[in-house]
Amino acid sequence: MSSLQRVNPRVRGMRGSPQAALQSLAARITQEISQGAQKSFTEVIDVESGDPHGAGMKSISFVRQVLAVCLCPQLLKDKSLPLDVRLRAQSLLESCDGGSVGAYTPSSGLHRVRQSIAEFITRRDAGAPSYAKDIYISAGSQMAMMVLVKMMASGQGETPAGVLTPAPCPPKLPMLLDDAGLTLVPYRLTEERGWAVELDELHRALEAARGRCEPRAIYLSNPGIPTGHMQDRKSIEEVIRFAAAEKLVLLADEVYQDSVYGAGSEFVSYKRVLFEMDKHLSDTVELVSFHSLSSGCMGECGLRAGFMEAVNMDAGVMHYVDTLMCFDISAPVTGQLALDLMVNPPKPGDASYDTYTQEILLTRATLSQNAQRAWHFLNALPGMSCQPAMGGIFLYPSLRLPAAITEQAEALGVEPDALYCQRLLQEEGVIVGAGCQHGDAAAAAADRRHLRLCVLVPPDTLAEALTRLGSFHLRLADACSPPNRKWDAQTRAQILNGDKVCTTARNQV
Amino acid sequence: MSSLQRVNPRVRGMRGSPQAALQSLAARITQEISQGAQKSFTEVIDVESGDPHGAGMKSISFVRQVLAVCLCPQLLKDKSLPLDVRLRAQSLLESCDGGSVGAYTPSSGLHRVRQSIAEFITRRDAGAPSYAKDIYISAGSQMAMMVLVKMMASGQGETPAGVLTPAPCPPKLPMLLDDAGLTLVPYRLTEERGWAVELDELHRALEAARGRCEPRAIYLSNPGIPTGHMQDRKSIEEVIRFAAAEKLVLLADEVYQDSVYGAGSEFVSYKRVLFEMDKHLSDTVELVSFHSLSSGCMGECGLRAGFMEAVNMDAGVMHYVDTLMCFDISAPVTGQLALDLMVNPPKPGDASYDTYTQEILLTRATLSQNAQRAWHFLNALPGMSCQPAMGGIFLYPSLRLPAAITEQAEALGVEPDALYCQRLLQEEGVIVGAGCQHGDAAAAAADRRHLRLCVLVPPDTLAEALTRLGSFHLRLADACSPPNRKWDAQTRAQILNGDKVCTTARNQV
Repeated sequence: MSSLQRVNPRVRGMRGSPQAALQSLAARITQEISQGAQKSFTEVIDVESGDPHGAGMKSISFVRQVLAVCLCPQLLKDKSLPLDVRLRAQSLLESCDGGSVGAYTPSSGLHRVRQSIAEFITRRDAGAPSYAKDIYISAGSQMAMMVLVKMMASGQGETPAGVLTPAPCPPKLPMLLDDAGLTLVPYRLTEERGWAVELDELHRALEAARGRCEPRAIYLSNPGIPTGHMQDRKSIEEVIRFAAAEKLVLLADEVYQDSVYGAGSEFVSYKRVLFEMDKHLSDTVELVSFHSLSSGCMGECGLRAGFMEAVNMDAGVMHYVDTLMCFDISAPVTGQLALDLMVNPPKPGDASYDTYTQEILLTRATLSQNAQRAWHFLNALPGMSCQPAMGGIFLYPSLRLPAAITEQAEALGVEPDALYCQRLLQEEGVIVGAGCQHGDAAAAAADRRHLRLCVLVPPDTLAEALTRLGSFHLRLADACSPPNRKWDAQTRAQILNGDKVCTTARNQV
Repeated sequence: MSSLQRVNPRVRGMRGSPQAALQSLAARITQEISQGAQKSFTEVIDVESGDPHGAGMKSISFVRQVLAVCLCPQLLKDKSLPLDVRLRAQSLLESCDGGSVGAYTPSSGLHRVRQSIAEFITRRDAGAPSYAKDIYISAGSQMAMMVLVKMMASGQGETPAGVLTPAPCPPKLPMLLDDAGLTLVPYRLTEERGWAVELDELHRALEAARGRCEPRAIYLSNPGIPTGHMQDRKSIEEVIRFAAAEKLVLLADEVYQDSVYGAGSEFVSYKRVLFEMDKHLSDTVELVSFHSLSSGCMGECGLRAGFMEAVNMDAGVMHYVDTLMCFDISAPVTGQLALDLMVNPPKPGDASYDTYTQEILLTRATLSQNAQRAWHFLNALPGMSCQPAMGGIFLYPSLRLPAAITEQAEALGVEPDALYCQRLLQEEGVIVGAGCQHGDAAAAAADRRHLRLCVLVPPDTLAEALTRLGSFHLRLADACSPPNRKWDAQTRAQILNGDKVCTTARNQV
C-alpha cells in the first residue's frame, strides 16, 4: 500500500466528482475569508447540496422532541415537553431491546418501525397491501440501493447486468452502479416536454444496450431528481408495461414524495398504480421503491435513515438482501425511530398536532414559493431557461454558455458547466450544482448545459443566492458580448428583479 | 431477478452465519412463549451478541443528555439538565452546518470531532502526534474496515491480495474480507499460552500463503476478540517488526481499549509502541487502528459510529478512502457527536463529573466482576476450560464435546459447537456464540470446540445465564456418560455454585 500502484484498480478508476471539487474550493474560500481575505461576499452560500438543515431550514419540533426523550429517558417526566411526545417516546423505547436506543436492531430494522411503514404505505396507496417483511430499513435510501444493485450484479466473466437510468439522473447513481459492476444504460428524458419519460426512448436505449450488457432493471425518480418533473399515472402505467414486457425490475426512487407543489400535481406511487392495473401485472411486476428521512419536509439528512419496499420480489432472492444488509449492521436507531415518526405524525387532538401541522405547512409553503420565485428569476436571465418544476427540492435550468467559457473549459480539460460553477463560486461565493454530474455531459452540446439549484432553503438565503447568480451571469454575458450588446444599468436591474424583461432579455443574447 | 439464478454469484455464495440461525431460532422461541407455549424458561437470555444495552446495561447519562439537547435545542434552557451538558451541546451544535444535527457532514466526519479524536489519541499515547486529517469517522469500525480492505483488493485477473487474520477472529471479518475479494491467511493464536500471537506462527502462515495470494496486511485485535487476551508491549513490538520486514499494513482493532480489567494488564496502543520504537520504524510502518462507540463502556451500538486513524499511510492512497467513504454519505451525526463526548468526558469541577465517573466505574466493575465470576464458573464445568481474560467483553472457553454430539452434528451437517449452542437455546433459552463463527472450525478437533460469552450484561442476567448453561452442560454430560459416571445431586449443586469441585469435576469426564 505504500504506492498508488497497490490501490484496487477499480477504486483507482473512480473520479472525484465536480461536486467534491466545488465543496473543497468552498472550504478554501471560507478559510481565506476567516483569515481576512477581502472578497465581494462575506460567506459562501450553498444551494447545491440538497441539505435543508445545513442551509438553515428548521427541524420539525415533534420529531426532535420525541428523539430527545428516547435518548434521555429522564425526560419522560419533563412536563415542559408535550404529553404526546413523551407517550410516543415511551412506546418507541418499548420496541428497542433493553428499552435503549443504544442496542443493536435487526439489520433490516426494528420490526415495529417496519410495521408502521407498511401501514403508512397501505394508507397512502388507497389500500394496496404492504407487509413489514417487505420493508428494509437502511442508513439512507442510497445504502438500500447499493445492496440491491450489488445483488443484481453478474459474476466475473459473465455478461454484465445493466440498469436503464435516466439522463439526467441523481448525481451518485452512476458511481454506485459502476462500483457494483453494473452497466449504465442511459435513456434521455425529454426536456422540452417537461422532462417526460418517453416510451420510444426507452426502447431505443434498450436496443442500444444489446450485446453490451443484460438489462435487468430500470431506475426512475418521481418526483424527478434533479429535474423536479412529475410522472402522471399514464406515464407510470406505460413504464410498468414496458418493464413487464422486458422483464425488468422497477426501481422507483420516490424519496421526494411529500414535496409535491406543482399546480394540479399529485404524487401517485408506482406501487399504487401497479396495484390498480391488471392482475397479471400487479401480481408479477417486480418493483422496489425507495423513501428517505433526508428528503423533503423532514430533511433529516444527518440522522441517516431510509427504506425500500420490495413488491413481487422472490423471497429467496430477498433473503440475500438480508445477508448483505448485515454488513452495515443496521441503520442508526435514532434514524429508525424518526422514520416511525415520519410515517405516523401527530393526529388531530394530540398536543403536538397544531405545531406539527404549522411547521409542515410552513416548510411546504417555503418550498413552493421558493421554487416559483427561482423559476421566474432563472427564466428571466439571458440564455437560461427552466422547465416548470412540480416536486422535489431542485430546479434544473438549462443555459447557453458563451463560446469564451466553452473554449476555456476545453483548454482546462473540464466540463464547461463545471467551469461556470467554479467561477460563480470564486466570484460570488455561491455553490450550485453542475449538470455534468447528472450523467448529462455526453448528451449535451458543449454550449448548452444545466445547473442544479436546491430551493428548500430559507427565503432570504435563496434571494441572496439568486442575486449573486444573476450578477455573475450578466457579467459573464457582458464580458462575452460584442460592445453594442452590453446590458444597460436599468435592464440589468430589471433582470435582477425578476421576470419583467424576460422576453427582451432573452432575445438580446 | 425472478429466480435465484440471477443473484450475483458472489452474493449467492455467502452462507448464513450460525449466529443468524441462532437469532432466528430465538425469535421463534420468544414468539412461541408469547403464544402460551410451556417451556422451562420464560424468556430467552442473550449472552452472545456483545450488545450491552440490549442486555440491560445502562447508558452513560452525560452522553445521552448532551445528545438530547443537540437534537432538541429548546432543552438548552432546561435547567433540570446540568449546565455543562447544555454548554457542551451548544458547543457541539456550533460545529454542525446550520447548527443542526439534521445537516450532512463531510463523509469522513465533522472536522471538530476528528480534531477531538486526534487530541485524545495524543494524550492516550503519551504525546505521539495525531492529526485530524488522518482520522476517518464512519458508521462503526466495521464500515471503516470495509472501506480499507476494499481499497487493498487486487484487480480482476491479478493475484488476490491477502490479509493475515488470527484464528479465532471476530465473527464478521472473514465475510467482510471475502466480500472485498481478499484472501484470508489465518494464523493461530496459541490458546495454552493465553492466546498469544507467536512469531513462528506468523512466518508459517505467511509461507503457506505464498503462491495463493499476495499478503498485504495483518489484522490483530487487542484486547482480543473474542478471546479477551491482551498483547504486551514486547509482543506488539514483535508484530511491528514482522510487519515492517514483510511490508504489511498493520490493522489494529483496538475497539475494546477502554475495557481492560485483568490484574496487571494495561492497554498500550500499537500507535504508541510504534512511536516509541526506532525512527526507521516509526516513520515508515503503515498502521491503521480502529475504535468504536459500540464497544466497551459506552456500549452505544445503536448510534453507529466509530473511527480509524491512518498512520504513515500514503496521502494519495488515503484520498481513495475519502472517495469510498462518500458511498456511505457520512456516519450519523448523533453518533459522531457521541464520539466527541467519548474522547472528551466531563472534567473535575464540571457538574456532570461525579455522576459520569460513578457510572463509568460501575460499568467497569460490573465487567470485571462478571468476567471473574464467569471464568470461575466455566472452569468448574466438566470438560470446559477458559484462559484468563484480561480485556474486552467476551470469554472464549474451550469445551470437550461428547461423541454423541459430534456424531449427531456430523449426521446433521452442522458444526458440533453450533449444535451445542442450538440445543442450549432450545432447552434452556440461552444464546451463546459458537466458536465455528470465529474462523475456528477448520483448525479445531471435532470434539474440542469453543463458545463465546459476552459478560458485559447485568450481573443477574449473567448469573441466570450461567446457571442455565451449567444445567444444560451437566445434563448433556450425564446423558453421554456411562451409568456409573453420572453426577450425584451434591456434586451437581457444587458445580453450579462455582469453582469448588473444579478439579474433581474435570477429572471425572
